[in-house]
Amino acid sequence: LFDVLINHIRRSPANFHVPGHKQGQAFDEAGKEWFASVLQLDLTEIGELDDLHHPQGAIWEAQRLAAAAFRAEHTLFLVGGTTAGNLATILHLCRPGEEIIVQRNCHQSVFHGCMMAGAKPVFLPIEFDHNGMEEPLDPDSVRQMIQKYPRAKGVVITSPSYFGIVQNVREIAQVCHAHQMPLIVDEAHGAHLGFHPRLPQSAIDQGADVSIQSTHKLLTSMTMSSMLHTQGERVKIGEIMRWLRMIESSSPSYPLMASLDLARRWIATRGFEELERLLTSLDHFRGNVKNYSFIKEVSVLNPRDPLKLTLVADHGVSGYAMADWLNKQGIFIELADHQKVLFVFSVGTRESDLVRLDRVLKRLDEEIPRFPIQPRIDFPRFSIHTQAKVEFDELRRRQRRWIPLSSAVGEIATEMITPYPPGIPLVLPGEELREEVISFLSEVIRLGGNVRGIRYSGTPSVEVLV
Amino acid sequence: LFDVLINHIRRSPANFHVPGHKQGQAFDEAGKEWFASVLQLDLTEIGELDDLHHPQGAIWEAQRLAAAAFRAEHTLFLVGGTTAGNLATILHLCRPGEEIIVQRNCHQSVFHGCMMAGAKPVFLPIEFDHNGMEEPLDPDSVRQMIQKYPRAKGVVITSPSYFGIVQNVREIAQVCHAHQMPLIVDEAHGAHLGFHPRLPQSAIDQGADVSIQSTHKLLTSMTMSSMLHTQGERVKIGEIMRWLRMIESSSPSYPLMASLDLARRWIATRGFEELERLLTSLDHFRGNVKNYSFIKEVSVLNPRDPLKLTLVADHGVSGYAMADWLNKQGIFIELADHQKVLFVFSVGTRESDLVRLDRVLKRLDEEIPRFPIQPRIDFPRFSIHTQAKVEFDELRRRQRRWIPLSSAVGEIATEMITPYPPGIPLVLPGEELREEVISFLSEVIRLGGNVRGIRYSGTPSVEVLV
Repeated sequence: LFDVLINHIRRSPANFHVPGHKQGQAFDEAGKEWFASVLQLDLTEIGELDDLHHPQGAIWEAQRLAAAAFRAEHTLFLVGGTTAGNLATILHLCRPGEEIIVQRNCHQSVFHGCMMAGAKPVFLPIEFDHNGMEEPLDPDSVRQMIQKYPRAKGVVITSPSYFGIVQNVREIAQVCHAHQMPLIVDEAHGAHLGFHPRLPQSAIDQGADVSIQSTHKLLTSMTMSSMLHTQGERVKIGEIMRWLRMIESSSPSYPLMASLDLARRWIATRGFEELERLLTSLDHFRGNVKNYSFIKEVSVLNPRDPLKLTLVADHGVSGYAMADWLNKQGIFIELADHQKVLFVFSVGTRESDLVRLDRVLKRLDEEIPRFPIQPRIDFPRFSIHTQAKVEFDELRRRQRRWIPLSSAVGEIATEMITPYPPGIPLVLPGEELREEVISFLSEVIRLGGNVRGIRYSGTPSVEVLV
Repeated sequence: LFDVLINHIRRSPANFHVPGHKQGQAFDEAGKEWFASVLQLDLTEIGELDDLHHPQGAIWEAQRLAAAAFRAEHTLFLVGGTTAGNLATILHLCRPGEEIIVQRNCHQSVFHGCMMAGAKPVFLPIEFDHNGMEEPLDPDSVRQMIQKYPRAKGVVITSPSYFGIVQNVREIAQVCHAHQMPLIVDEAHGAHLGFHPRLPQSAIDQGADVSIQSTHKLLTSMTMSSMLHTQGERVKIGEIMRWLRMIESSSPSYPLMASLDLARRWIATRGFEELERLLTSLDHFRGNVKNYSFIKEVSVLNPRDPLKLTLVADHGVSGYAMADWLNKQGIFIELADHQKVLFVFSVGTRESDLVRLDRVLKRLDEEIPRFPIQPRIDFPRFSIHTQAKVEFDELRRRQRRWIPLSSAVGEIATEMITPYPPGIPLVLPGEELREEVISFLSEVIRLGGNVRGIRYSGTPSVEVLV
């Protein structure tokens, strides 16, 4: 696809089509320095450039090469992120009223897919430790859920998690397939898996029917470009495409699509060597972290994603406070919550970046004893076992009102309530707002955390059913 | 927003967050020439970069500046194209089973919005002339539809059309508002309107409640970036945002958003002068076209969009044949159908582009008599008055099968069937496949046109209800 784009522009074609910047001929002067070269590739469905939503040429070929590189049967390029792939897959699997088995701490887009499909999610229980790190699913718990909900249309899990926790996809896939159920893996954080022996295997390699990967997050494509991989007969690629045509733009971005093509070429040809370099550097770096006095890496069971590093501080210093201090030193991290900070490394991480980070973390470690101490607040573990009191389909027909968060105990939430990042909903629409959840959310807000679904103007407030 | 991005990267921050290319540090070597500069801006929700789905800083401010430039009350940046705006607006307005009044030849995303909402579209009749050019809506026909469907949740029209046909938005808005109904204008092709006295006024200037504009099509932002403008109390911007959070990626692209910010600055500061230059050049160019022997511009009533040029050839030469010939000369156009070819000009069109086009068109005009002659096929006018036999909500629960197109008379279509471009569905899911429509589609396919919703492997086939 990239080559076809370059061949097109090398012909110096005359442009009487959209987009209106005409390959950069009209663009803000100050912006040209950053945009001019990519605007030459910002084209539309003309000549040999094919059509994402009905691929037959360059895009079809680029997707075929990607399927080969990621060892899938079919691969689709996504321009609406992993969000679009999660939505389309669930809309394909579920008709209104049908059940689907979902890991309770999935990304919000999985729940959005259920809401749009009118599907009824039933939840795989998840346990968290005192640092808010999830424990991997027990394949037996998946079996029990399937036996309890044998008519469910599929099982949706997240692996790896934001923090690099990897599920036993192989055994979970075997359990699903023994019951003729497709396994969908939201692998947003795992596009690099399987490209080095020290990394966990990819979901597709372990037998998942569908995996959706944010190629932009851990590999090298542009933000918002992802891939959806499938294998086997339990899902229909044509039906997933039908839903993608509805959800995604009818003017998909060629720079995004070309960056997926280039990310595939990069990982297929240079991946092993670059991952080898990165993993060696990270071993050395982690050795240094072990020597800090107050900052510790949160330990995670293997298999794990070594490209994620989660740090907590003794002394009850919040992740928000550490992140603020790091930002002031020019260190920008992936996320902070009330307990911890998360660093994301990738094939784009250089040795010099790690040297700089180590130097700054050493200083943080020295400063930590002088940070204000916060009471530790624990993740409200109970909340993840609750079930909706009002189902999604009914919820859309009901009246709503905004009330102060502090007086919402016992009310039914209408919005997803999601401390962000990591974007995993604590309360789903239709669930009762329990006292413990409300006091946890109030505490997160007080410590400076960002909670989506809560309105902040003055008193924090929440929308509930009338 | 652009300035905040530049300020961020000027600090040389250390990057321990997504995306994985780390501002271009890992990227395909051949691709760097085109992507390296924009990858520096391909960032995520860190530091001062705000959050599209909960804007409070730079994005909030960029949207406020856009609202001022486009004279709207609120403006939202869209990264999922006008598609995302159409979907979110319809999902906001309609609960399952509710009616909405829709211009029959809307873009497919409007119908997709109805399908996802479970809404029931009722259609404003549209007439086409023998060239397949629509006639503007009569505001009286809108009034009649509102009187017939007084509980409808809104009216959705397209203005301007792909071919530059502009609706009487002001009078239609008055009719809608007299009945407390919001008017939604799919203004995908009209982001430039209102920025020069010789252009038609924008939908917002004429009183529309919502207009959704593909800023990338006629202005200068990157493909897939659009804006949604609202005014008044008949629609709730907060509810539209709620649906956008569900439909759009949770990792929106900063280059796309920054390009919207820059497109706003460009049109607000340089728009008049550049449009003046363009319109003067186009006057001169159109004067030349008048002198051709066999090629004619299709005449359209005023007000019209002067940035669109539709040509037909005498002698029954199809648009496909003309487009193929033009492609061979390095001239790439917006669309061809069985009758006509469409050229899109914009502020990015230079005088030299028009000189080149005139030179090539003169040669085409000389060659036309030697082109193979096709029988003229007319647009099947009847089809636009049909109504669904099976409603969207029921359709999702029914079984389907593929059959040859030629034997599908009387069957119920399950897919939208859309000659593409321009992407306006001829048959909607749930409609009966009538003989006249099938013979028109067969003819379009035979002439080399592209019809979405038809499967081409061997005999053209179509999916219908069992």
